[in-house]
Amino acid sequence: MRHYLFLFGLLITVCQPLFAQQIATQYKDAADKIIAAAMKNEGAWNKLQYLCDVIGPRLSGSEGLEQAVQWAAKQMKADGLQNVRLQPVMVPHWVRGEESATLLAPREVKLNMLGLGGSIGTPPEGITADVIVVPGFKTFMGLTEEDVKGKIVLFNAPFTTYGDTVQYRSRSAITAAKKGAVATLIRTVGRRSLQNPHTGTMSRYEEGVPKIPSAALSIEDAMMVARIAESGITPRIHLKMDAQWLPDAQSHNVIGEIVGREKPEEIVVMGGHIDSWDVGQGAHDDGGGCMITMEALKLLLDLGLQPRRTLRVVLWTNEENGQRGAWEFFNSEKANVNNYVAAIESDTGMETTWGFGFSLNAKDSSNPSQAESKAMKVVNEIASLLEPIQANQIRPGGFGIDIAPFINAGVPSFSLENNRELYWDIHHSHADTLDKIEPKSLQTNLAAMAVMSYILADMDIRLNEITD
Amino acid sequence: MRHYLFLFGLLITVCQPLFAQQIATQYKDAADKIIAAAMKNEGAWNKLQYLCDVIGPRLSGSEGLEQAVQWAAKQMKADGLQNVRLQPVMVPHWVRGEESATLLAPREVKLNMLGLGGSIGTPPEGITADVIVVPGFKTFMGLTEEDVKGKIVLFNAPFTTYGDTVQYRSRSAITAAKKGAVATLIRTVGRRSLQNPHTGTMSRYEEGVPKIPSAALSIEDAMMVARIAESGITPRIHLKMDAQWLPDAQSHNVIGEIVGREKPEEIVVMGGHIDSWDVGQGAHDDGGGCMITMEALKLLLDLGLQPRRTLRVVLWTNEENGQRGAWEFFNSEKANVNNYVAAIESDTGMETTWGFGFSLNAKDSSNPSQAESKAMKVVNEIASLLEPIQANQIRPGGFGIDIAPFINAGVPSFSLENNRELYWDIHHSHADTLDKIEPKSLQTNLAAMAVMSYILADMDIRLNEITD
Repeated sequence: MRHYLFLFGLLITVCQPLFAQQIATQYKDAADKIIAAAMKNEGAWNKLQYLCDVIGPRLSGSEGLEQAVQWAAKQMKADGLQNVRLQPVMVPHWVRGEESATLLAPREVKLNMLGLGGSIGTPPEGITADVIVVPGFKTFMGLTEEDVKGKIVLFNAPFTTYGDTVQYRSRSAITAAKKGAVATLIRTVGRRSLQNPHTGTMSRYEEGVPKIPSAALSIEDAMMVARIAESGITPRIHLKMDAQWLPDAQSHNVIGEIVGREKPEEIVVMGGHIDSWDVGQGAHDDGGGCMITMEALKLLLDLGLQPRRTLRVVLWTNEENGQRGAWEFFNSEKANVNNYVAAIESDTGMETTWGFGFSLNAKDSSNPSQAESKAMKVVNEIASLLEPIQANQIRPGGFGIDIAPFINAGVPSFSLENNRELYWDIHHSHADTLDKIEPKSLQTNLAAMAVMSYILADMDIRLNEITD
Repeated sequence: MRHYLFLFGLLITVCQPLFAQQIATQYKDAADKIIAAAMKNEGAWNKLQYLCDVIGPRLSGSEGLEQAVQWAAKQMKADGLQNVRLQPVMVPHWVRGEESATLLAPREVKLNMLGLGGSIGTPPEGITADVIVVPGFKTFMGLTEEDVKGKIVLFNAPFTTYGDTVQYRSRSAITAAKKGAVATLIRTVGRRSLQNPHTGTMSRYEEGVPKIPSAALSIEDAMMVARIAESGITPRIHLKMDAQWLPDAQSHNVIGEIVGREKPEEIVVMGGHIDSWDVGQGAHDDGGGCMITMEALKLLLDLGLQPRRTLRVVLWTNEENGQRGAWEFFNSEKANVNNYVAAIESDTGMETTWGFGFSLNAKDSSNPSQAESKAMKVVNEIASLLEPIQANQIRPGGFGIDIAPFINAGVPSFSLENNRELYWDIHHSHADTLDKIEPKSLQTNLAAMAVMSYILADMDIRLNEITD
């Protein structure tokens, strides 16, 4: 028996390069058909239009989210997807309420602000305090408790990368509270602005550190307050936020699939997150990702392309402020995780896609194995079929928050990747709206997702059977 | 006597080309000194910072405008300008008041809106009506009174050029009221948007046509309402505007000068408008234009460059919704208009300047005379001195609203011209703020203005003495 296994392994190893080259040949017709259909597709756009315009934003715990969940399941059924189901998930329920920030001195100005997700509110009468402005944590560290006590601290940090700058959204309130600040404001985490503040989650407060409210000001208003302070005038601000945490609310992951024709127990899972922030429409983040994954299955069904393995769409709930949907789904499938062939997430917006990030084993991507590079070859071969729509690049790193539990369990992972020319201007803001999405980009993203997921679910080899 | 005049005329005609070439040589040192000083100048920025951040927006009739007027006069005096004075002007006084537009169906959304300047308000309870959406006037013309009666009409016209698109701001209310509309909304007159609506003046209502309120929606919200209507759902909106006209208010033009050392009675006038809309900071429109013209005089004084003729700065009031300042100033100088050598306006924002628009006689620019092209040669010669700062282009057409009365009286006219990469995104909006101005651009604009105005006020020839 051992000998057979060894020989089988050897066979796979030897055949891998050959196999990779065959994929393009084998799937060329299917890919071309998918691309042609996707580039004429109107369904994804129509769905996204309904989601954005008629349902609107979808924060965890909101009516909008539950409407979206119910509507998406109905759509999946109408589209002929199989095993459509709602998976119950209890989600955190934070509500913004009324909020405002008003500059009182040197003149009265209603500032353009958004409270940060998860922030506590102010007392009902608000907080009125002088403002101390710092360009970042480093300068703040040099301040004494006396400098900070009783003040509102404005972290006026310019946008560099999202990863760097988002630290101010996460950590400002905790950092400033340790020195006695009564509230924090941040320069909004965004790149270009037309008085457009961005929300997004802040870290949970820290045990033993006073909880203080935290909000983002538009870049313009943060810079104005900073300039005023710089000119020697002490800015004074009245901050009023009714934000509060309510008891956890009922939500659902939305699941639908095409059952595999040969190996129904093996699964390629893909999806986006159906929740969004409570402003704008969540068009790029992540309405588009949800609609193209749903539509990809309908498109394959319409083309009669039932893959060997099961192709499962999950619209995860509560990505933005909890990832409870991701964990609920993973936990329900944990016992079965070895049957997961690949996990694909779409959550980088719907601008022009250039391809996918990919990790055979993202847990250990710092030290790529031979298997990783062999797998990369196979994936590149698949991606070569996306050359007609310029979505044929594969870069190392297939990360996604909602597929993270699968990644941690060793499942090969993909992230549909997009250019982000506009993304950081609109992310988590009132301006993440459908007009920012080009119908053609949506079609291209749909095409890339459908081709990649179909081939992964259909091809002979499983990526995680590739060995060093 | 006739012979002498003829000979004098001949002399000027013959010497013009030669003269033009001499200007560059004659003024090279002065221009270089001015440019060097301007490119180190901090005064214009500091003034503009105070105007924008501490004083803020300056709509006619507002406290902000009067603060700005008084402060500017004080600054001019402190800078050593001569004959600093306030010229009283009664200005129209429109106030916005509280306002909102709420989409009620298919879902409730607080829309991003700004009432148009000059609009009447709604009744106190607001107006609630179904919305009919048209892409422009042409489609509207095809609608019957029955289609329109009792509806809110949304003109969802995309931005093409400012000149074309601004027609919707001006004429929508009158056009729609003729068919019984109860209010009009327009897609905001702006190019790119992050939920940023723009205000600006609408035409006075028409005698005999019912007055209806008019407001701009952000591009995003206008497109959303249009998509909803397109999808077969009738949008319904609640519009509430407390806008009203108050009695005319006292305002002032701010005037200061450097008196000419040889021909004090001859004048080069230049300026911008000190009023702005009531949102944002009026940084590009037209705080920058005002501050660089004030500062240009200080800079010349500091360099000891007193021109032969008088160099006069006027900060005109009420450009945005009345041009009363322009007319008051002109009427007070009308008897003296032949002594005006040139009128220069800066009102195209403070992005990178490329030079000036110029008309010897803008009244008749459709049929350029030989004098016009000779004068253009002279002006190009002056502009050649701005080559170090790439502000050396002169294009036909020196127009400006505040200098229009002088243009009509035949005074040679200049407009300081800027690239408008960002201008139509921020114009008349909350986003016209100081952060949108590069300090170096402000310096370059200052340099261009100071060099051009100084040489025009100092050179031997008067442009309007150039003959065919």
